[in-house]
Amino acid sequence: MAGPVINSAHMRLAIDVAQRGAGYVSPNPLVGCVIVRHDNVRAVGWHAEYGGPHAEAAALRDIDKLDEHDVVYVTLEPCAHVGKTPPCADLLVAKGAQTVVIGCQDPHPAVAGKGIERLRAAGVNVIEGVEEDACRWLARFFLWFTKTQRPWVTVKVAQSIDGVVGDPNVRQRSITNPESRTIVHRMRSHYDAVLVGSGTVVSDDPQLTVRDVAGRNPRRIVMDRHGRLPLTSHVIQTAQDVPTIVYTSEQAPTPWIEALRTVGVDVVDPVCASASDLKAVLTDLGRRSITSILCEAGPTLTTSIIQGGFVNELRLHMSSTILGDGTYWRPHGFQASFRLIESQRVLDDLHITYAAVASNV
Amino acid sequence: MAGPVINSAHMRLAIDVAQRGAGYVSPNPLVGCVIVRHDNVRAVGWHAEYGGPHAEAAALRDIDKLDEHDVVYVTLEPCAHVGKTPPCADLLVAKGAQTVVIGCQDPHPAVAGKGIERLRAAGVNVIEGVEEDACRWLARFFLWFTKTQRPWVTVKVAQSIDGVVGDPNVRQRSITNPESRTIVHRMRSHYDAVLVGSGTVVSDDPQLTVRDVAGRNPRRIVMDRHGRLPLTSHVIQTAQDVPTIVYTSEQAPTPWIEALRTVGVDVVDPVCASASDLKAVLTDLGRRSITSILCEAGPTLTTSIIQGGFVNELRLHMSSTILGDGTYWRPHGFQASFRLIESQRVLDDLHITYAAVASNV
Repeated sequence: MAGPVINSAHMRLAIDVAQRGAGYVSPNPLVGCVIVRHDNVRAVGWHAEYGGPHAEAAALRDIDKLDEHDVVYVTLEPCAHVGKTPPCADLLVAKGAQTVVIGCQDPHPAVAGKGIERLRAAGVNVIEGVEEDACRWLARFFLWFTKTQRPWVTVKVAQSIDGVVGDPNVRQRSITNPESRTIVHRMRSHYDAVLVGSGTVVSDDPQLTVRDVAGRNPRRIVMDRHGRLPLTSHVIQTAQDVPTIVYTSEQAPTPWIEALRTVGVDVVDPVCASASDLKAVLTDLGRRSITSILCEAGPTLTTSIIQGGFVNELRLHMSSTILGDGTYWRPHGFQASFRLIESQRVLDDLHITYAAVASNV
Repeated sequence: MAGPVINSAHMRLAIDVAQRGAGYVSPNPLVGCVIVRHDNVRAVGWHAEYGGPHAEAAALRDIDKLDEHDVVYVTLEPCAHVGKTPPCADLLVAKGAQTVVIGCQDPHPAVAGKGIERLRAAGVNVIEGVEEDACRWLARFFLWFTKTQRPWVTVKVAQSIDGVVGDPNVRQRSITNPESRTIVHRMRSHYDAVLVGSGTVVSDDPQLTVRDVAGRNPRRIVMDRHGRLPLTSHVIQTAQDVPTIVYTSEQAPTPWIEALRTVGVDVVDPVCASASDLKAVLTDLGRRSITSILCEAGPTLTTSIIQGGFVNELRLHMSSTILGDGTYWRPHGFQASFRLIESQRVLDDLHITYAAVASNV
């Protein structure tokens, strides 16, 4: 008798529901699970927050026993070890799973194929690699962090059609529309941290918090080699409420460092402004379990990150305007290739997501 | 009793089929027609070539009589005058049409509401404005030409993410991928003419013909104030086969003009290099019944067209690369707003279509 038909649309649903956990699961991965019988969805589950049930457990919550017609779709290999929760591979076996479809393997040393092995040892039919690229993209923060021990770096650039990113003569000149800016707030809530240079704080005095949408505030990271960050800025004034890290250097005045520390800023002092120092900063952030960073910096730091090869993902928010004059983010003498992941229209803005070719996970 | 339900999906199908006439109907508009009974499509028709049957006649070809359940969707108001073919309004009445849904009115002086009047006078229920914006966009060459007696100007720009459009040190440096270039050939076949400056001919020696796809060659227009166009260029060498117009000025040498005319080039000599002359050129092209132009020029002419306000449509073909150095098409001191019409992925290139806000049709 032929086994159940595998339908990749169910895996895509698992990917969709997994994203509901965005911003709440770090340093765990986003994972989704869909349970299907005769091509009808019986249950869905996702990893909703760090320490909470895994996607498989969430999907199986109200199901006592699976039968031969049930297919379990899960975006990432089920775990095989006792962490915050019991092993999902054991749970699937205990519930009688007979067919499990897996998007991609979990490279975490405690799993790394052991989940699949345990399922197969119990006689479960395991099918791997369904919608694998999309499942890896879903779990990219986790996969990259597991591989490198450094955070995934997303660079956000808002520009006009002709590549203008700002106007040095106009404070907080907005290139994109209000809806695009709301989406940036949602993006922020999905990252462990946001990153800017001191120039952005000096010129725009942003809060870098999540306000237009529901979601968690990311940590705030400011690169400030010279100690230019004003003590009166929003970021410093609210450091008691929103964890804030400042990377600086010996060039910063000691009283300024002490003043920041007094109001609760975590001041770190490796030299931090050249591209080679960016690697030290990212390594330090990895040590702090920060798996993902959204860089909302100006052209100088943005260009340094791209030129240094530290960009994993580029989010281009492009308005439908030609601006002619202003600041460009042009990285002279540098070329880079990206993969086009998707583009999405937001009124007359276009949001384009690129992955750096060099950062396959 | 309630009348038939109007479903805008049928109008969208009429728009889709109308596009099959692209490149063959000028100076007539693209028009599509769908005949529906109980929400089932009975027939489709489109204006397939200049002088051939209109969309309504094509759709009605195999239908003797319409009944009360039939709804005729047509993207443009049916004609009311005898042109190359008899009036479609009369045909619809003769076939017994009881409900006609119209996308947009035809502004041509011979129609301009008279088609709708004639239908209503015969007791037909006429519903206007269904998917009107999309129907106007479909007929944009015709609507703009009818309004201004000048051609619709589409500017095509191929650029990297950071706005590089070319490299002056590399001949025919290709920014976009081969599939994008095939799509440019298809685009060419949909226009009455393609436009370049002499600099593009000198540096790239393009053929400006339709080769990668089936379709008609557009006329070729070269702006060449100084008479720089080489007699050995592809464009001049093939002028006997593909109609070619050169706009030049008193600065061009007479022997050069005579040599061009000898090989069949239509040399026109108003001064033609500044933005004010572009208007004279477009007016002259309008007199020649050219309703649409695809501008494939380099940054200088492209910028002149945009700065002069002559752009109706911008086609941005953006590669997924950062190039850092090269030529930019930046129109200093100039700002313009566009409407985002659509974006389409072509492998890792993104093709974005914008309409100039100032050129509503």
